[in-house]
Amino acid sequence: MLRRTTQVVTGAVAIVITSGLAGFGQDQERSSPSLGFSTAQRAAQVEAETRALAVPTPARARAWLRTLTEEPHVAGTPADHKTALFVRDKLQEWGWDASIVEYEVLLNYPENLRLPDGDVSGTSLELVRPDRQKLPVLESFVKNDKDSVSGKAFPAFHGYGASGTANAQVVYANYARPEDFDSLERMGIDVRGKIVLARYGELFRGLKVRNAQKRGAVGILIYSDPADDGYAKGDVYPGGPFRPGSAIQRGSVQFLSLGPGDPSTPNGPSIKGAKRLPIDPVNGFPLNNHFVSGSFASDKARHAGDAWEKETGLVRDDYFASIPALPISYDAARPILEALAGDNVPSGWQGGLPFAYHVGPGPAEVRFSTTMHYELRPIWNVIAKLKGEVEPDRWVMVGNHRDAWVYGAVDPGSGSAATLEMCRALGTAVKNGWKPRRTIVYASWDAEEYGLVGSTEWAEEHEKTLDEKAVLMLNVDSAVAGTELDVDGVPSLRDLLLDSADAVTDVRTGRSLRKTWVEHRRARWISQVPVDLPALEAEKDSPRDSSVAPRFSPQMDPLGSGSDYTAFVDHLGIPAVDVGFSGRYGVYHSIYDNFHWMETQGDPEFLTHTMAARLYTVFVMRAAAARVVPLTFTPYAEALGEHLDDLRRMVERKARASSADPSKPPFPFKGVAELSQSIARFADQAKSLDRQAAATAADEDATAERLTRLNDALSRVERAFLLKDGLPDRPWFKHAVYAPGLTTGYASWPLPGVRQAIATSNAEMLAAQVSALVERIDAATAAMKDAESAAKP
Amino acid sequence: MLRRTTQVVTGAVAIVITSGLAGFGQDQERSSPSLGFSTAQRAAQVEAETRALAVPTPARARAWLRTLTEEPHVAGTPADHKTALFVRDKLQEWGWDASIVEYEVLLNYPENLRLPDGDVSGTSLELVRPDRQKLPVLESFVKNDKDSVSGKAFPAFHGYGASGTANAQVVYANYARPEDFDSLERMGIDVRGKIVLARYGELFRGLKVRNAQKRGAVGILIYSDPADDGYAKGDVYPGGPFRPGSAIQRGSVQFLSLGPGDPSTPNGPSIKGAKRLPIDPVNGFPLNNHFVSGSFASDKARHAGDAWEKETGLVRDDYFASIPALPISYDAARPILEALAGDNVPSGWQGGLPFAYHVGPGPAEVRFSTTMHYELRPIWNVIAKLKGEVEPDRWVMVGNHRDAWVYGAVDPGSGSAATLEMCRALGTAVKNGWKPRRTIVYASWDAEEYGLVGSTEWAEEHEKTLDEKAVLMLNVDSAVAGTELDVDGVPSLRDLLLDSADAVTDVRTGRSLRKTWVEHRRARWISQVPVDLPALEAEKDSPRDSSVAPRFSPQMDPLGSGSDYTAFVDHLGIPAVDVGFSGRYGVYHSIYDNFHWMETQGDPEFLTHTMAARLYTVFVMRAAAARVVPLTFTPYAEALGEHLDDLRRMVERKARASSADPSKPPFPFKGVAELSQSIARFADQAKSLDRQAAATAADEDATAERLTRLNDALSRVERAFLLKDGLPDRPWFKHAVYAPGLTTGYASWPLPGVRQAIATSNAEMLAAQVSALVERIDAATAAMKDAESAAKP
Repeated sequence: MLRRTTQVVTGAVAIVITSGLAGFGQDQERSSPSLGFSTAQRAAQVEAETRALAVPTPARARAWLRTLTEEPHVAGTPADHKTALFVRDKLQEWGWDASIVEYEVLLNYPENLRLPDGDVSGTSLELVRPDRQKLPVLESFVKNDKDSVSGKAFPAFHGYGASGTANAQVVYANYARPEDFDSLERMGIDVRGKIVLARYGELFRGLKVRNAQKRGAVGILIYSDPADDGYAKGDVYPGGPFRPGSAIQRGSVQFLSLGPGDPSTPNGPSIKGAKRLPIDPVNGFPLNNHFVSGSFASDKARHAGDAWEKETGLVRDDYFASIPALPISYDAARPILEALAGDNVPSGWQGGLPFAYHVGPGPAEVRFSTTMHYELRPIWNVIAKLKGEVEPDRWVMVGNHRDAWVYGAVDPGSGSAATLEMCRALGTAVKNGWKPRRTIVYASWDAEEYGLVGSTEWAEEHEKTLDEKAVLMLNVDSAVAGTELDVDGVPSLRDLLLDSADAVTDVRTGRSLRKTWVEHRRARWISQVPVDLPALEAEKDSPRDSSVAPRFSPQMDPLGSGSDYTAFVDHLGIPAVDVGFSGRYGVYHSIYDNFHWMETQGDPEFLTHTMAARLYTVFVMRAAAARVVPLTFTPYAEALGEHLDDLRRMVERKARASSADPSKPPFPFKGVAELSQSIARFADQAKSLDRQAAATAADEDATAERLTRLNDALSRVERAFLLKDGLPDRPWFKHAVYAPGLTTGYASWPLPGVRQAIATSNAEMLAAQVSALVERIDAATAAMKDAESAAKP
Repeated sequence: MLRRTTQVVTGAVAIVITSGLAGFGQDQERSSPSLGFSTAQRAAQVEAETRALAVPTPARARAWLRTLTEEPHVAGTPADHKTALFVRDKLQEWGWDASIVEYEVLLNYPENLRLPDGDVSGTSLELVRPDRQKLPVLESFVKNDKDSVSGKAFPAFHGYGASGTANAQVVYANYARPEDFDSLERMGIDVRGKIVLARYGELFRGLKVRNAQKRGAVGILIYSDPADDGYAKGDVYPGGPFRPGSAIQRGSVQFLSLGPGDPSTPNGPSIKGAKRLPIDPVNGFPLNNHFVSGSFASDKARHAGDAWEKETGLVRDDYFASIPALPISYDAARPILEALAGDNVPSGWQGGLPFAYHVGPGPAEVRFSTTMHYELRPIWNVIAKLKGEVEPDRWVMVGNHRDAWVYGAVDPGSGSAATLEMCRALGTAVKNGWKPRRTIVYASWDAEEYGLVGSTEWAEEHEKTLDEKAVLMLNVDSAVAGTELDVDGVPSLRDLLLDSADAVTDVRTGRSLRKTWVEHRRARWISQVPVDLPALEAEKDSPRDSSVAPRFSPQMDPLGSGSDYTAFVDHLGIPAVDVGFSGRYGVYHSIYDNFHWMETQGDPEFLTHTMAARLYTVFVMRAAAARVVPLTFTPYAEALGEHLDDLRRMVERKARASSADPSKPPFPFKGVAELSQSIARFADQAKSLDRQAAATAADEDATAERLTRLNDALSRVERAFLLKDGLPDRPWFKHAVYAPGLTTGYASWPLPGVRQAIATSNAEMLAAQVSALVERIDAATAAMKDAESAAKP
């Protein structure tokens, strides 16, 4: 995945689970589908599920992973194509209607000529001052891990990065967030003409490059600090699952939060012959500028940039990485950091290397080069279907990418292996007579790592069809990066997820996945979710007694970006969940994310793969077979209220900051009443619809027409959240409730328009975004009302 | 100080100060005393202050520090006595009535015979397995720092520690908090028969020993992790102010939160011939058990323990460290930590050494010895007075300890140097004709480091006098551990502190100390103090607009323990503040806390010393000269409300935890209404009294008798908070509002009785403590009412 699981669970006791916590709501003794099924239908479904859940096995999951990780398979390479053929053939073997769907997209690869002295042409890194020292750009061989030494692996590079050479003094900029550069500025440190050394974490790496180049840096080195996913989190590979000293995190430096997909076709599919922006398919200009110490290497590059700007009316540097960037290891970063002088770093900037960090600039001076070849390359999605019996034109979708930066055992191999086992289970179920009501669509995406390219281009091509047919989507990426169920998703899918997780037992603990997940959410709620005290005045008169137990309702984390659900949720308004297992995983996007890591560290017995496959299987079987689409909206209402509370807190903090600072005028949260009223209407309607939908599902006499009308209406509720003109500054993002943070790339910004207005203290934007959001929430309420009417006999 | 400043400000930009923040309330252009003075009196006072503030100079502060840090001067040693003579003589020279007050107290010193091979007899540390390796127990010589090599310095040891030898496998226990041992237990790790390796931080070191011995460990090594005050905070000495690899934090392992002072006289002064508990003054039994691998070394020790238990009716192990404990450096801890196997540590346990930590037990096995001599030793407080003109029997007190673990340039030398400059300034002021209304009492305490011994014994001896005469106390300890004003205190002294801080300019910034301090508090309030949202329901109907600016009132941090204010506040109910400058200081209680550190790192130009001396001078001059005692109670009311809110939040979190866990029955906050009503009454009365006191101060016609009556009444308000029988489990602590945490030692537990009841879910204790607290708050309200009556003409 583009997105690294930021939640790294460290050590043996990460969250203290108090034994004996009851599950959310009443405990369910049984795991039969409770959503959308009638009693009559349920028995057959349970039997089919039971048989299907017996299909996935550790041995098979292991076999698929072994095959898929045999070679490095970066998108668009022959090895990648081989994996597409393998997946297609397997799916066909299991009864799916599967085929390869090709796109032609712009990709970059680094120069990869191995030199006799062990170096690679085109990539170099050297400490020039105070003492000349060559720094490593390749990962080290690990004993017993044959994959760790492979000439087939590309040297480390950035997807959609620019070629170039930089030679300058270094400034350490922490995570290279805007606030980090602000801190440097307050310290009197200018990064103009400097190389920025930044650590991975906190925000999407492309935005680090953007932040550095906007401030005039001539190059950026992004390294993995041991504090973030190395030894400070636990034992390092091969002795443990975390990042060893030589491991390098590759990755895309696309400016993800502005729009994913092929940058040459930002608003349409990259099919052969598609109209493209003027991007040089051979040299990559203006994506690839061949910068040398801050200047264009050629007039050709400059002219390509001008042409692009003229055609788009945009500023090139706002959209593409234009300075050379190289990902490096902490072994390589250490001598640079040790050679920096200047002030000690501000609070929160110190990493895990054993000395005090300094910000520079210099005396450390570095010279580095990175050389890209850009090409229009074919990529290969595999799209497969199992046809529905009653509503064949309604799609329950499952997607998972297949391309990897190197071997990708976790990312995305574990997802591919687990979803393949799911596909085998579903195929077997159909062979055994199970009849899905809806069509199941499975997608094995390509070029996700470059910027969700395969999924975005396909979604853009099938925009209308998807708008009409898509019911929901299960996104899988790194299915097994640990043992703890980790779910992000649109709230209307919470209950289906809980329902499905209840059907799967974690063999390691003997408890249902639901139980453990709910307990983790509850533990977080107990210790971290803010407590709002009523004013002491109120307490004085009517003290709050604990006889009213505080209310807990678990929520999934909101979706940001960084995986293939993005186009579906954010651009098309299709409800999605992203489901995997996370935990002790530190070799993300390195050569060590390979089969040997998985066999020795991640999932030696492939139990988690099997558990994941079972969870995906039951989730999809219920989504596809339920007579009433299993979306519920009460959780959505709760989530909206919580998101609004977050913004209210943000405004309160701003008001505090303003209260004494004349330079910060008060920023009133105008519109909070309208928003809360709109959410209250949504909540009332949601409750009523959920009740009616459940009643209809239970009504054995419900006519086929009534069910179909209800299902169509339920499926359309999420579409009501789409803003016609999209979000401020990024029209491709159309969802009014969820979007990735404009300045984070990965992390979600719920209620993004209003949030952006508050963050930037833009009163005009606030008025417009509140009104747009209220309109969309009201539209969703109206859509729910329609669904309720449709549900009634 | 016993207490290490836990707030370590790292790097150059620790807290972002938004420029242009106005001060709290209205900005004061001038710095004349606003509290307790009449207009007529003010002019003379301002003039006297102006002259007095010109007295302290960097050169003199430097000279006093140079003299006081010439030799290691542990309490009770000849070098310590020399410093007492020096201080007494200087004070006499400056016009104070000064004398040495001796006590005879039980102290311990380590065996200190330097062996030919560079070792020290009686202290040893060795890694026995997996590979035999001697580990360092002495600190390294630092070039240019003559003090860093001194045979006069004791080897590292713990005050009130037990002698002994332990040889066992090691378990790493993080900070050795109760919850850390709980985590180990959940991991299946038993510390019985093991040596616990714990890092410094979070709680008072004596409680670490207590926690370890209660769980059956046979020894404990406490080390300084570089994450806490070493290179992870900034450059290390001699290149920076933080802790280098060989530095060792000595310190007392008394069980501080149960009661400070000489353990042989827990309830009275240690004067010559005092009745003492049966503690062997030669061998130290039962404090000093000479444990060998968990067993008593002698029957004598066992019998001494039995005798002590019989006489006190207490359990010896609850009151004294009974297992050998040795403080060590991170250079010494590293090979042990590296040799530990077992699971990776839980989240939050990893320190700053460059490898993944493991909990053990073993294979690391360690053998260590520490050998103590116990003696009844004389200690020397210096007590000095400048007599008051109008109310000579009312005392404004300033105290600062003088004994140090080694040289103690910061702790306590900087405090001694700064308060000596204050004493010189005050003496000069009197010579110049300034007439304090009240008597100023200056105390240079001894044996603070062992457990606040000098101040506690003196306070116990003069309990009745102090009850009658003491108005307030300024406590100083490490005056200069950085550049940022750091104040803990009883809220009635907030306004006097603000008022005084307004009169002193920070020469480095050109701004008043008040302004910067208020801005730091405000920044914390903006970003960290919880926001309580009104229920969304309420917002819906009447949205909160920012036209009502949120209210900020800065508070000092509450007093816990760890310095000499403890007996005065907690045992006698005398309002106190603890005032110093903190920041980048990592050599606490090591040999490097010496003059060279101060000259090269801490305060090279002695500007902060001078600033501190000025602040103390103006604070004391105002406290001593104001016609009305400058205590205000509105801040106290605000603080009580905030402390209650903290407890309400605690109860809410408990209620959340109970809501789903049958093993955790709900714990209602019975009494919250009574408490909030009581606080509301207090607040009303406080406002009214503050108004009346200000009016009386301003009333030029106020009679001498009226002023005296008012002053006496104001001084007695704090006494009303004293509980006759003290707090649960620790009757010596009598203050109902402030106490050190029972399980923290240092950190404050405001509303300690109620807090303890909530923390332990003890409903019976809650009822009793709420009622006791309400009674005390009401008593304080009544005392304020008396003061208000006295204030009226």
